[in-house]
Amino acid sequence: MQLVDRLLKGDKRAAAKIISMIEDRDAQAQKIVSLLHHHTGNAHIIGLTGPPGAGKSTLISALVREFRSRGKRVGVIAVDPTSPFTGGALLGDRVRMTDVGVDDGVYIRSMATRGHVGGLALATYDAVKVLEAMGMDKVFVETVGAGQSEVEVANLAHTTVIVEMPGSGDSIQILKAGILEIGDVYTVNKADEGGAESMVTNLKSVLPEDREGWAPPVLTTVASEGKGVPELADRLEEHFSYLKKSGKLGEKERIRSEVELRDALTETMLEKLTTSKGGKKLYEDVLDKVVSRKLDPHTAARRLLSGKTG
Amino acid sequence: MQLVDRLLKGDKRAAAKIISMIEDRDAQAQKIVSLLHHHTGNAHIIGLTGPPGAGKSTLISALVREFRSRGKRVGVIAVDPTSPFTGGALLGDRVRMTDVGVDDGVYIRSMATRGHVGGLALATYDAVKVLEAMGMDKVFVETVGAGQSEVEVANLAHTTVIVEMPGSGDSIQILKAGILEIGDVYTVNKADEGGAESMVTNLKSVLPEDREGWAPPVLTTVASEGKGVPELADRLEEHFSYLKKSGKLGEKERIRSEVELRDALTETMLEKLTTSKGGKKLYEDVLDKVVSRKLDPHTAARRLLSGKTG
Repeated sequence: MQLVDRLLKGDKRAAAKIISMIEDRDAQAQKIVSLLHHHTGNAHIIGLTGPPGAGKSTLISALVREFRSRGKRVGVIAVDPTSPFTGGALLGDRVRMTDVGVDDGVYIRSMATRGHVGGLALATYDAVKVLEAMGMDKVFVETVGAGQSEVEVANLAHTTVIVEMPGSGDSIQILKAGILEIGDVYTVNKADEGGAESMVTNLKSVLPEDREGWAPPVLTTVASEGKGVPELADRLEEHFSYLKKSGKLGEKERIRSEVELRDALTETMLEKLTTSKGGKKLYEDVLDKVVSRKLDPHTAARRLLSGKTG
Repeated sequence: MQLVDRLLKGDKRAAAKIISMIEDRDAQAQKIVSLLHHHTGNAHIIGLTGPPGAGKSTLISALVREFRSRGKRVGVIAVDPTSPFTGGALLGDRVRMTDVGVDDGVYIRSMATRGHVGGLALATYDAVKVLEAMGMDKVFVETVGAGQSEVEVANLAHTTVIVEMPGSGDSIQILKAGILEIGDVYTVNKADEGGAESMVTNLKSVLPEDREGWAPPVLTTVASEGKGVPELADRLEEHFSYLKKSGKLGEKERIRSEVELRDALTETMLEKLTTSKGGKKLYEDVLDKVVSRKLDPHTAARRLLSGKTG
């Protein structure tokens, strides 16, 4: 397939086209992504999450420049609706990224995942594959921090970076509510604002000193000035080495593959159920019974899957 | 089942027990929820979402009191990890709700949905059913606003309330990024702080004047003092009436049922695949091939579902 060939040579327009097809759930998209699967598995996938206002996109821009200076090819997928990469287009400030936008070794893409039942997972996984297949060494995925999405990004990424900002007890409250378990590297960004040190201290006091051989570091950065960014890049490389040496990379790949396999199973099953002869009508009939409370969803599911619908 | 009988009589301890079973994915939970299905369908389900700090939980507390004074039974499910109902327990401020906590006509419950692949949907839907079955007239679901989750709560709820706070362009940025389409009622809370009026004006300028016969109102509230809360409660009742009269309630129920049916189909299918004779091994073998890039997930899914695994 010509589009795939172009992508494998690193063509950004092919990447843009394929990711748009993924977003639009184009019939061809699934086939293309299937073809890409065996061209993946070499990139380092880095999830970056944190509250709106923590400066995640500025930090990613700085990391892109840092890794470019180290000779790495870098891709970015932004699924954070508050990201300038994503929502910013509406306000006209997408320019913030143009300094790296003309470089052939960088590709940045925002994703509109809203409206897809099933969360950010499926489309984002597919988009990451596109960036892997086009030869990116590092793929950043930016999401906003809000409970469920951190877990999803932690499943998707090899290395999860939690970006916090100085100050508020709120941040600690958010932390306690779920991201202590999933961060591999923590950074307090905007560290030139007051309160960064106490935020670092607070974080260190609640984080584990050792998590299966890895001690999650707590850094400080001022992304807008590039301060602390080389150190952050070093920690990301160290974590990737740790994953490889410890065998954890294989475990992570298995989790990623299982998420994808389950999504694919659901999609394939629904397609089978609703496109077979009479299948669509049967599905609608059963759904009607769930709506009218004549059938509960689990009984309905069992009947649909066994082909019986009394 | 005794637990179900107790729940149907409004027993809060039975509700607590069943929701814990749902969270723990207890083997009995699915059966119980199935039994509850035909005792549901009468409550008004109200989703409440917005950024951390907008005062969502204080607003819900005020709405609980308001609806109690109108003789309604009220349930609350908090799936927002930053909510005092949820994360607050860690900080010891769960007390904020105790003034309504002793009332038999009120039941408040936080949900730990983290770690479940598949998002907030499934467990939250089940918990809402528990509250419907115990006889609640109004069921509030609190989530934090962050892109995907608003869409999920809009699918779950009959009426979606977007809670904003005065000030920041950030709020407008967030709004533009996805919640303009899903709010049925908007309120700028903490309206005693400066900037509420301009926030209201901004919201009104971007919201549609009419959405299929409903004009999403933009209110102001000071939840901590109860200001504007009776008006908000009135708008919620009006929206519920509108849904019933226009036939939209049926459409919403169909969407809700379809989300549940699809989740149940996935669960049932995975159970079938992995518990049948040799099924678990087959599943693991295919997963191994996906991990090693010998098979792509979609081809793997088709093979698993057709029973062929060459």
